[in-house]
Amino acid sequence: MNKYFPGIGRIEYRPDAGPEDTLVFRHYNPGETVHGRSMEEWLRFSVCYFNTFRYLGSDDYYGDRAHQRAWEDGSRTLDNYKRRMLAAFEFCHKLGVKYYSVSDRDMAPEGENFDETNTYLEEMVTLAADLQRQTGIKPLYYSADLFTHPRYMNGAGANPDAHVFAYACAQVKRSLEAAKRLGADNFVFFNPRDGYQSLLQRQIFRDMSHMAQLYRMAAQYKDKIGFKGQLLIQPKPSDPRRHQYESDAMSTMHMLRYFGLDTQYKLYIKPAFSRLLGRPYEHDVNVAAAFNMLGCVDASGNYPEVHGTSDLCAKNVADATFIMKCILEQGGLQDGGFTLGGRVRRESVEPRDLFHGHILAMDTFARALRNAARMISDGCFAHSIQQRYISYKSGLGEHVEKSSSSLEECEDYVRRNGEPQHQSSRHEHFNNMFNYYVYPPRQ
Amino acid sequence: MNKYFPGIGRIEYRPDAGPEDTLVFRHYNPGETVHGRSMEEWLRFSVCYFNTFRYLGSDDYYGDRAHQRAWEDGSRTLDNYKRRMLAAFEFCHKLGVKYYSVSDRDMAPEGENFDETNTYLEEMVTLAADLQRQTGIKPLYYSADLFTHPRYMNGAGANPDAHVFAYACAQVKRSLEAAKRLGADNFVFFNPRDGYQSLLQRQIFRDMSHMAQLYRMAAQYKDKIGFKGQLLIQPKPSDPRRHQYESDAMSTMHMLRYFGLDTQYKLYIKPAFSRLLGRPYEHDVNVAAAFNMLGCVDASGNYPEVHGTSDLCAKNVADATFIMKCILEQGGLQDGGFTLGGRVRRESVEPRDLFHGHILAMDTFARALRNAARMISDGCFAHSIQQRYISYKSGLGEHVEKSSSSLEECEDYVRRNGEPQHQSSRHEHFNNMFNYYVYPPRQ
Amino acid sequence: MNKYFPGIGRIEYRPDAGPEDTLVFRHYNPGETVHGRSMEEWLRFSVCYFNTFRYLGSDDYYGDRAHQRAWEDGSRTLDNYKRRMLAAFEFCHKLGVKYYSVSDRDMAPEGENFDETNTYLEEMVTLAADLQRQTGIKPLYYSADLFTHPRYMNGAGANPDAHVFAYACAQVKRSLEAAKRLGADNFVFFNPRDGYQSLLQRQIFRDMSHMAQLYRMAAQYKDKIGFKGQLLIQPKPSDPRRHQYESDAMSTMHMLRYFGLDTQYKLYIKPAFSRLLGRPYEHDVNVAAAFNMLGCVDASGNYPEVHGTSDLCAKNVADATFIMKCILEQGGLQDGGFTLGGRVRRESVEPRDLFHGHILAMDTFARALRNAARMISDGCFAHSIQQRYISYKSGLGEHVEKSSSSLEECEDYVRRNGEPQHQSSRHEHFNNMFNYYVYPPRQ
Amino acid sequence: MNKYFPGIGRIEYRPDAGPEDTLVFRHYNPGETVHGRSMEEWLRFSVCYFNTFRYLGSDDYYGDRAHQRAWEDGSRTLDNYKRRMLAAFEFCHKLGVKYYSVSDRDMAPEGENFDETNTYLEEMVTLAADLQRQTGIKPLYYSADLFTHPRYMNGAGANPDAHVFAYACAQVKRSLEAAKRLGADNFVFFNPRDGYQSLLQRQIFRDMSHMAQLYRMAAQYKDKIGFKGQLLIQPKPSDPRRHQYESDAMSTMHMLRYFGLDTQYKLYIKPAFSRLLGRPYEHDVNVAAAFNMLGCVDASGNYPEVHGTSDLCAKNVADATFIMKCILEQGGLQDGGFTLGGRVRRESVEPRDLFHGHILAMDTFARALRNAARMISDGCFAHSIQQRYISYKSGLGEHVEKSSSSLEECEDYVRRNGEPQHQSSRHEHFNNMFNYYVYPPRQ
Repeated sequence: MNKYFPGIGRIEYRPDAGPEDTLVFRHYNPGETVHGRSMEEWLRFSVCYFNTFRYLGSDDYYGDRAHQRAWEDGSRTLDNYKRRMLAAFEFCHKLGVKYYSVSDRDMAPEGENFDETNTYLEEMVTLAADLQRQTGIKPLYYSADLFTHPRYMNGAGANPDAHVFAYACAQVKRSLEAAKRLGADNFVFFNPRDGYQSLLQRQIFRDMSHMAQLYRMAAQYKDKIGFKGQLLIQPKPSDPRRHQYESDAMSTMHMLRYFGLDTQYKLYIKPAFSRLLGRPYEHDVNVAAAFNMLGCVDASGNYPEVHGTSDLCAKNVADATFIMKCILEQGGLQDGGFTLGGRVRRESVEPRDLFHGHILAMDTFARALRNAARMISDGCFAHSIQQRYISYKSGLGEHVEKSSSSLEECEDYVRRNGEPQHQSSRHEHFNNMFNYYVYPPRQ
Repeated sequence: MNKYFPGIGRIEYRPDAGPEDTLVFRHYNPGETVHGRSMEEWLRFSVCYFNTFRYLGSDDYYGDRAHQRAWEDGSRTLDNYKRRMLAAFEFCHKLGVKYYSVSDRDMAPEGENFDETNTYLEEMVTLAADLQRQTGIKPLYYSADLFTHPRYMNGAGANPDAHVFAYACAQVKRSLEAAKRLGADNFVFFNPRDGYQSLLQRQIFRDMSHMAQLYRMAAQYKDKIGFKGQLLIQPKPSDPRRHQYESDAMSTMHMLRYFGLDTQYKLYIKPAFSRLLGRPYEHDVNVAAAFNMLGCVDASGNYPEVHGTSDLCAKNVADATFIMKCILEQGGLQDGGFTLGGRVRRESVEPRDLFHGHILAMDTFARALRNAARMISDGCFAHSIQQRYISYKSGLGEHVEKSSSSLEECEDYVRRNGEPQHQSSRHEHFNNMFNYYVYPPRQ
Repeated sequence: MNKYFPGIGRIEYRPDAGPEDTLVFRHYNPGETVHGRSMEEWLRFSVCYFNTFRYLGSDDYYGDRAHQRAWEDGSRTLDNYKRRMLAAFEFCHKLGVKYYSVSDRDMAPEGENFDETNTYLEEMVTLAADLQRQTGIKPLYYSADLFTHPRYMNGAGANPDAHVFAYACAQVKRSLEAAKRLGADNFVFFNPRDGYQSLLQRQIFRDMSHMAQLYRMAAQYKDKIGFKGQLLIQPKPSDPRRHQYESDAMSTMHMLRYFGLDTQYKLYIKPAFSRLLGRPYEHDVNVAAAFNMLGCVDASGNYPEVHGTSDLCAKNVADATFIMKCILEQGGLQDGGFTLGGRVRRESVEPRDLFHGHILAMDTFARALRNAARMISDGCFAHSIQQRYISYKSGLGEHVEKSSSSLEECEDYVRRNGEPQHQSSRHEHFNNMFNYYVYPPRQ
Repeated sequence: MNKYFPGIGRIEYRPDAGPEDTLVFRHYNPGETVHGRSMEEWLRFSVCYFNTFRYLGSDDYYGDRAHQRAWEDGSRTLDNYKRRMLAAFEFCHKLGVKYYSVSDRDMAPEGENFDETNTYLEEMVTLAADLQRQTGIKPLYYSADLFTHPRYMNGAGANPDAHVFAYACAQVKRSLEAAKRLGADNFVFFNPRDGYQSLLQRQIFRDMSHMAQLYRMAAQYKDKIGFKGQLLIQPKPSDPRRHQYESDAMSTMHMLRYFGLDTQYKLYIKPAFSRLLGRPYEHDVNVAAAFNMLGCVDASGNYPEVHGTSDLCAKNVADATFIMKCILEQGGLQDGGFTLGGRVRRESVEPRDLFHGHILAMDTFARALRNAARMISDGCFAHSIQQRYISYKSGLGEHVEKSSSSLEECEDYVRRNGEPQHQSSRHEHFNNMFNYYVYPPRQ
């Protein structure tokens, strides 16, 4: 466990380190108890195999691969994939992260045909299982990569060709088996190509009903083989498609509910994608939580002014504080967790930049956890919410909450009580209170 | 019917008029049969009272009122509202439009208290009923304005204060009664203030359940009084709030379905709002249609590059052709129709500019109707869709559509059939075909 | 000075105040020395008369005025304007701010004609001068409001009608005189209506040359009357126009340079507008500083995901830290300063919300000043920049900086030295260092 | 010339072809005279080697190469590059396009070192020269690719490392020589990596002065070797960098003017990039033309709602009509022209899709040329502009245009003439007129 990142040891918690000493945690102290649990339990960080070990610094057709890695020759040989896996476990180990997040194609290359592909996968899963035993590191989630290969260029579950649909299903089947074998806590569906470029050639409802059938079969097969992980879907609004059907929390929940799948699936929210639709970073996390559907969170950031995927290593503590506040209020993510989904910039070409990026994100969420814990234990926000909605606790308001009111009753109420008093939302006061926790005075 | 727009007569269809002759229709010929119905029946245009007669050329806090109108002194007196109504009917009459779309506050001002407000409303509804009898013009939709008055600054159905909620309900009750009296074909809920500025002070689920109760009571009262119009909701993503709960078709359908209201409500889609979420103009119209929930359409445009409400008079025929294609494919809007929801620019200060704006939008959608009709009767697009999805007509594909497939069956299929053939989407070919209809050669 | 904000005294610096105690400064301590000057000197805050006293909680045509103010009856009488001015001075005094920023139309209403308008203005300037003497408060900038009145709906300096152009100039003349009388440190041109809605009716170059002539005349008249303030232009990309000619720092500097005005004008940058063009908050401040053209800064925020003017009270300390770092590096703003240009939300209806909003913004920039000062005194960033560009200190690099190199010399260099070594930008390392200062550990 | 696109002949002008017959031109008729010149002369179309022959259907790190091409094995061997070049010339020939646009790296791979690289380039230039002689096809522009290779990851002309700067210069030198040899009409600088990801590590002014020195040396060397082509710069706002220094027409012109280079360079405008900054498609073309700096135009489209590079094959005739109107008004592009810069979607995997994409774009601009020609010959728009600005023809307005006016003169004018009359911009009327040309009635 000290081959591919020479000169870098275990990253330690050193809150007193100076500004240029950036291979330490300043905020993340795994064993420290915050708000009743250890930081490690609240956060359950996982390293994203895809963005950390498959991204090599090329960018679209513009730029050639820029990252040089001792373990990576760029080939699709098993040897290369094995070295990559060893590097991944060394990386997690040194970072002190107990989970990784991985797909079949992250782990193993495609072969000449379906059977050869599965043979490769088996071999790599066996290696992963060994490394898991040695290190105690395991998958936060497992996934089937249904978007990299050109066969999926027009979609997987929503492909207009049933042959491609079948291929996706076969891949999901094998992936569920691998997920069970590796003890993954979750199984995620990413469907970045299931959407449309143009409505001239698509049937929206039909496409969504096909996706639903894939989800239904996956849930059945999961039960059949006794895989205990949680099934998750990650919404994403667009990019690479002009529109993706599972574009946000509400649309995905509508699809699940319409097709009767809402008890079997939860959502894996990437807050950076909320920004792609012009919404606050914390939006979809809160929406999913409001309907009890929040499973996992992708702890990456984005350029706030960019309407596109930027996959930054999270650095905005104010944003992250909103996320942690929501998650603490719902009592944590249970078997879910946080994927460190950012990737270093193309210009960050050295292996140690991978550490800098992960430390940045982990410290950002750790500091956010501390902020949110203080917000909640102080109780100021909870109290103000309670006061704001107090009129729903009795009388007409209570009838509304019990669905026993009528328009006539409301009219009577207005006749008797006249014009309501206009109440300031005190927006700026509450933002000031928020800043009290994020940027405390008397540092 | 010739007092407020002197010098302007009935707008006629004159396809041979020259470029500077813009007080004529070049494409809209109400009685002409296109695709089996008259243009008038397909389009059922309505004038939007709000954007045409309440907007007077001020813009936010920047700009003072710029539009001078003979009928409008800017006061909240009944006399002013009566003159405004006479101008509105004269305008519809000269434009040859048989519907108008109106809210209680468009028609009548607020009084000192709830009863006085309703007295005013009664008087104006009586005048409207008279004018309707004289002209044959009637409401495409009626609505309760739950957003103009400061009492609604923090929302109506989702207001944290039950007193404001009750006020909104009382206003909806009276509006449903007025809608019945005026024979409105639809009743629309606009909820531009029901959302959040900051999640620090809001409970998403609770807010949405309150809105649902308002909808439930409205549906009950509608049945009680025997109002036959269709209940509609208009989704809007944001502006004036940072986020509005009914932000698009999918989120509104999720809310309706979750609270058991999906059989009583349909959607009133404004395609320009699809752009606010970075989606194609035609997106939400197609999504609502896919789930049989499309009621009415707002025929306004927007600056494509602007992420904000711009309420332009529609001018983009290519965009409108996508809308008309969808609507023709679903057999029309039945008792729904198109609201001419654009407003003239602040700099278009003359009353006749109102005609220019409406003619522009009506011609845009009329030309789009002609384009779409040819697309459908030629059958090229329908045929290509059929070919594209043909694999779902038999075998495994048929099992998928019948929900009788399994992952194991899919794996077997892949084993037997190997890698699917990669099929070009022919995106550019289909866009070329689309342009054939929108910009025909040999003009 | 204690009439319109009863119950609120001077806002004090109390870093130990609790979270709900928000009528105090937690970070802003005017007399404290930071980086060699008092906080007050670095920041030179001014209250924005326009957003604080002319905005009354209406929003576009949607919402009626929501803010009730004891001093404001909404009329255009001199009495109303006088009460407003007294309230403004009381507000500045209690907030401890020594500057205000104001335009002619903020101060005084239009009369029936040009002369009456100027009579009103004179009277109000006299009152302002009195209040200035009593309080020691003075204008950071003065301005002519060339955008509120409908005459300017198609622009002021770029209006296609020379009569409107002349009106704008006459107003500028009187405003320069008032600015001199009140001792304003700066004179700002805002030109939010000088741009286009559509290029069908505009001549870009001609419009810009007219604007240049207005600037030229203003500079001449300024010299003539001996006004010593700095002339400034505020760039804004769009809204209310589809495009405004002075859309950002680079376009405004190009216009100034093309027409030979670059020595007489500087820029008044509103970082929130950088976001309207999809750029980082700190972008235009840094660009203007790079060309020695930074005069004043508008210390307001915006919703990062919104492409529109949101005029929030600044609350993002990380963003503000970038601004302060740039300004400290250029040695401060001299006679410039920071305008508190945010406005409270429409829902913040109480007068004390004005205090909350201003305290939020002032604390945000005060904390940012502290952060930036530590960054600079530690020297880590400066040192890394020096290292990064070190190759330009000698040899070929030095020739480049002296403009004495040639392509041939470069080719020789490459022949001799081969492929350059690829150097990591260490993006994540530097962001970690930045966060060290913004969210310090061990709070 | 019939090897790589079997079954496809010369594309012909057949305006009567049916909707599914898309391997024909419906609007582009090269030899037809429109507005006094042949369509071919006005448009001077060129095939973009980069987007047509280097893009193979991969997309960022998501998607593997999807396009299979008979001539392309994906290797960096000279044989592969030669086959690619033969395919390119066959493609241009069959499409009837007389220009291609190409960079050194499009033509030839990098070798092990600078000299080997140049040897490869020489060999490929020789082949290109041969093929040019055979076909009459020549470069509209030549360019040096200063962004693909990882050495340029932190920029070329603005790289903080002088060694990389030198490498870029050496490459420019060789490219100028090749451009001369091939008789290119233009030489373009693309600088998509010359900008910043974060201002923490950059010095804006220094970076821009280095770029200016590169431009200065290039102009000197051009004169030295007697290359007669026009030097061009293509502005692009962002992507791949967070901000690029040459972000739009105004910023690039400011840089050129500041460093004294404005007589030697012109701009190569890609209208789709105007949308990246939230501006109309036609914006930068018109701005560059206003300052006599418009050289070439990239005839690609983009998704209007997407803030990112989408490189669509142009299909929006209304947008293109704005471009052609501007270009006809300035008398054409002289030695400039239009690059067909769109690329087919990743899902358009067949070689013939390349034809569909190019035909779509060429017909779009050809139809736009016809529209614009009618607009101009009818004279309605020109006349309305003349009327709108008529007040600048005499009196005060004339003084303004001659820079001989003063604020005092303006005040006198206002005193004598009072309030200007408010004149409607008639925005909707003019849009209606515009649509008359784009969507003519009586098709």
